[in-house]
Formats: sequence, C-alpha cells, structure tokens
Amino acid sequence: MIEILVVGSVALDDIDTPFGQAREVLGGSAVYFSAAASAFASVGVVGVVGSDYPLERLSPMRERRVDFEGLEVREGASFRWAGANDFDLNSRETLLTELGVFGEFQPTIPASFRGARWVFLGNIDPRLQLDVLEQVEEPKLVLCDTMNYWIEGSRDELLELLRHVDILLVNDAEARELSGDFNLARAAAWIRARGPDHVVIKKGEHGAILFGPDGVFFAPGYPLEEIFDPTGAGDAFAGGLLGHLARAERIDSEELRRAVVFGCAMGSFACETFGPERLIGLGAAEVAERVWAFHEMTRFESLTVQP
Amino acid sequence: MIEILVVGSVALDDIDTPFGQAREVLGGSAVYFSAAASAFASVGVVGVVGSDYPLERLSPMRERRVDFEGLEVREGASFRWAGANDFDLNSRETLLTELGVFGEFQPTIPASFRGARWVFLGNIDPRLQLDVLEQVEEPKLVLCDTMNYWIEGSRDELLELLRHVDILLVNDAEARELSGDFNLARAAAWIRARGPDHVVIKKGEHGAILFGPDGVFFAPGYPLEEIFDPTGAGDAFAGGLLGHLARAERIDSEELRRAVVFGCAMGSFACETFGPERLIGLGAAEVAERVWAFHEMTRFESLTVQP
Repeated sequence: MIEILVVGSVALDDIDTPFGQAREVLGGSAVYFSAAASAFASVGVVGVVGSDYPLERLSPMRERRVDFEGLEVREGASFRWAGANDFDLNSRETLLTELGVFGEFQPTIPASFRGARWVFLGNIDPRLQLDVLEQVEEPKLVLCDTMNYWIEGSRDELLELLRHVDILLVNDAEARELSGDFNLARAAAWIRARGPDHVVIKKGEHGAILFGPDGVFFAPGYPLEEIFDPTGAGDAFAGGLLGHLARAERIDSEELRRAVVFGCAMGSFACETFGPERLIGLGAAEVAERVWAFHEMTRFESLTVQP
Repeated sequence: MIEILVVGSVALDDIDTPFGQAREVLGGSAVYFSAAASAFASVGVVGVVGSDYPLERLSPMRERRVDFEGLEVREGASFRWAGANDFDLNSRETLLTELGVFGEFQPTIPASFRGARWVFLGNIDPRLQLDVLEQVEEPKLVLCDTMNYWIEGSRDELLELLRHVDILLVNDAEARELSGDFNLARAAAWIRARGPDHVVIKKGEHGAILFGPDGVFFAPGYPLEEIFDPTGAGDAFAGGLLGHLARAERIDSEELRRAVVFGCAMGSFACETFGPERLIGLGAAEVAERVWAFHEMTRFESLTVQP
C-alpha cells in the first residue's frame, strides 16, 4: 500500500540555461514530485506516457519506493516540453509544448493506490483533478497545484475543486490572478474562504509563504551559489512538503511549518542539476543538513515577549 | 551628544499611488532614516534645504530627539522629488527630480556631531560620503547606502569608500550591478572582499538578507494587507537597523540578526502611510509587537541537530 498518490505529467524535457543545456531529461510534475517525496515515504504515480518513453530510466526511482503501476503506456508520443531560462531564473520561457498522449490523459487510479492517505494533484485540468478525488477512498490531506491556464479557462471547475482541497499551492502571480487581488495576504484570505484550510504561495528564489488558520509562516529561498536549472523546483517543493507530512503522520501548525521548510529544501536541491537526478540521489543526512541550514538562516531571538 | 549621525537628503515629495496621492510630504533619506532611528536613540541630521522649506513641520521629529543643527538652510529651492507607484510596489517610476540647493551639497559636520558612534551615510555622491568619514572622530560602525547612479558613474570613489564601510546596504539590482554577478550569494561575497564586514541586500516586499562572517540571515517582508506607499522604506529599514544597534550598544551576530528584523519592521511601518508620519508616531510597544510578529512568522523547530 502506497502512502502518497501523485497524479500529473511524466515528460521528456529539453532545457537551455546560461549554464548549459540538457536534452530529453526526465521531467513532468509527477516525476519531480515523486523524486522528492520518495525521500520520505512511498509514492504511487498516476500518469501517461507514449510508446517512445524510456521506461528503463525510471528504475532508480522504482528502487526508491516509487510505484509506477498507475503509469499508462499508450500508443503515440510522450509529452515533450522545452524551455529556456535566462540569468533571471524566476522568469522562464517555454519554447515547446507537445502534449502527445498526455493531451487525452484520463487518470485511472489503480485499486492498490485508492487507499492513499496523502494526495498530490499535479497541475492538470481541474476536471481531471476532481475525477481523481472521486476515485480515492478517504485521503487525510489533498494538496493541489494549478496554473494560469486553468485559472483563466476553467475557473468554475477550479472553484468547485477548491472546495475539496486542503492545501492549495500556487505561485504569487497565480494567487493574484485567481483572487483578483494584488495583495498576497488578501489573495490568500480570498482563496482560503473558498475551501482550502491552507494556501502556500511559492515565490521562487524569494521562498514561500504559508497562510492558514494559525497565521502566516515564511520560509526563504536557499541562497545557492550555483543554480543550474529551476525546472521542477515547484513540484519538488510539493514533494518535500507532502513527503514530510506523510512521514510525520500528523498535520498541525508546527508540522506544517516544518513541511514548508522541507519543501524549500527539496526545491533548492532540484535547482542544483538538470532533471531530477539530484533529488533521486539524496540521502536523509543531506536533507536534514539543509533543513538545519534553513533554521540557522532564519532564527533570531526577539527579546520581546508575546504582546 | 548625539548617538547616531545621518547624512543624506531632506526633500519635499509628491507621490502618486493607486491608493491616492500626496503633495509636498516630508521626504528624503535623512528624514525617513531619522524618523525611524529616533525610536531607539538620538539622531543628528546633516543635510541642506532651500529657503522655501517648511522647517516648522520638522518639530515633531525635534521632540523625538532628532537634532537638526547640521541642517543647513541655503538661499534657493529645496530638493523636490515626485514619483509614482503602480500596484507592483517594488517598481517605482520617478517623475521629477529637482535637486535645487541639494545639487551643491557639501556636508559639514557640526562639532557636536563629530563624536557620534553610529554613522549612516545616506545615498549621496561617494566623494561626499568619504568627506563625511574624514570629519567624524571614531565611529563604532559605519552603515552606507548607494545606488545605480553612483555604481555606474563613480565606481572608483565607491570602491575606495567601501574600504571604510562596515555594513553596505543595497538592493538586489544594485548588488548585481556593483559585483557584476547575478547570483546574490556570490555578489555579497564579492562586496565583502572589498571592505564591508557585512552586506545587507534589501529585496523590498521579499525581505532582506544579511551576509557576514557568521553566515547568512534572512528576514521576510511583513505581509501588510494595506500598503500605501513604499517611499522611504529602505531608509526606514536603515534607521531600524542602526537604531537598534545603537540602543543595544553591541555588534555581534545575534544583535545583527535582531537589527535586520528591526529594520524590516520599521520598513513595513513606513509603507503604511504617505510620508514619515507613521514612523514619527510609533511607540515602543508597537515596534516590539511587530518584531514579535516577525519572530512568529519565521520560527520553526528543525528537529534535527547541528550536523
């Protein structure tokens, strides 16, 4: 029985950055997510690839308790994405999106995955995200990603979905567009009023903010001296966040704070190489060391008592 | 005897934001800095205004231990600045810069100010910042601001100045331009190799990062639900930082972390109104409450021990 279920894209990416280029690297939200989350718990992947996909390259992830039983192989081409980053790694240009068989993706959750307690709905059509929720039995927590394309084109379905989501994960631009409010604090309140108990706003190199019933928690970006490629950092963040909660088997204010930091840590590792290799090779000590670095980077004594 | 010396602009600002507009509000780096720093310690201002300046409007600051003995009044027009903010408060458009008598500013430090232990060199010509340092006796700490105009036009003088500066305060774009390195961690290392023990990189709504011999400290921006006007927030940040150190009379790693948080707190208050009024009216309890809020917003237990 898997602990975490992820539904999302499984792709092949071409990436150009000022530091180099990579061709046909493993990509997609489900791949980056599970590469990160499997450092903490077992993960089942639901997705689709074409008959051209190099399935053998997923072996290192299988060895790391990622179950690909839910990965459908269809006649046709796999999802291919190409993107370029400039030095400003927060802004990324998409050069190519060829959906291939992913364009007709209809997620079917294998029976052995339906009891998963922890669910990540990667960035796909909100209608499909709702379909997935109808197929799972009784998840303890549903974490959901989305993007401007769905916010603009499938707003009603997205709002319906939000009623069933525990934590919405969006970047700052998406939070602003969804709520119609430029101010992030008000944007988060608007979203929380529509279902999710918590909203996590990702700000790339500037970190992430958790808004919830117990207030606000802020975690910075890790000041890497070498950032190769931020592709997949958001999904690695999701994997660290949900992976930590699944391992802790607890959702409270303190655990959620730590989960956001684990998310930032995994997001920072994702930037250190092209593709998910760095995440797949991570040991527990390295993760703990980076989380400790975040602690050292943010701690201070206020010398004032609670007012 | 004053504790803190500030040299910088004293101006009249016209400000347009999506939330309203203000005309002829008190402005300038020395005004915002001393409005913030005087919550912690006594401040002496060195600057110049024209014969048209409404000096009586500085009275509330005089009552708050700001000494204007170093404020020269010259025949002519005061420095006037006009700017506009869009909803994206991190990007600001300058509509008007009329230097007036500030264009021939030659700072003269009054005898009673020369023993100041804490010095803030506001954003003026690095040649004048060097002049100021020659006139002060033995400062314990020199905090220095600059901008792209001097980085591009007076690079040699700025590099000479850096050798005499303890903390350089710049925004992310300035750190990148000065060092020629896009990566902020490497940019900070480059700057620190040229003199300053510490570099503080201001990132507006995204907070501030302190780089120093004891590593990195990160403080977030305060998630205000209403941001009226970010004018002066950077100088208020400087005032909170140096004000706290002057009050603590100590410069160590722990105190510097707190000082950065006091800086962020004062910067956030500066955004709540047009002009420095909010800063001038601040009570100690309000400041302590906001610093506590920063503590609550960033604290977490890592559950791992130091590796």
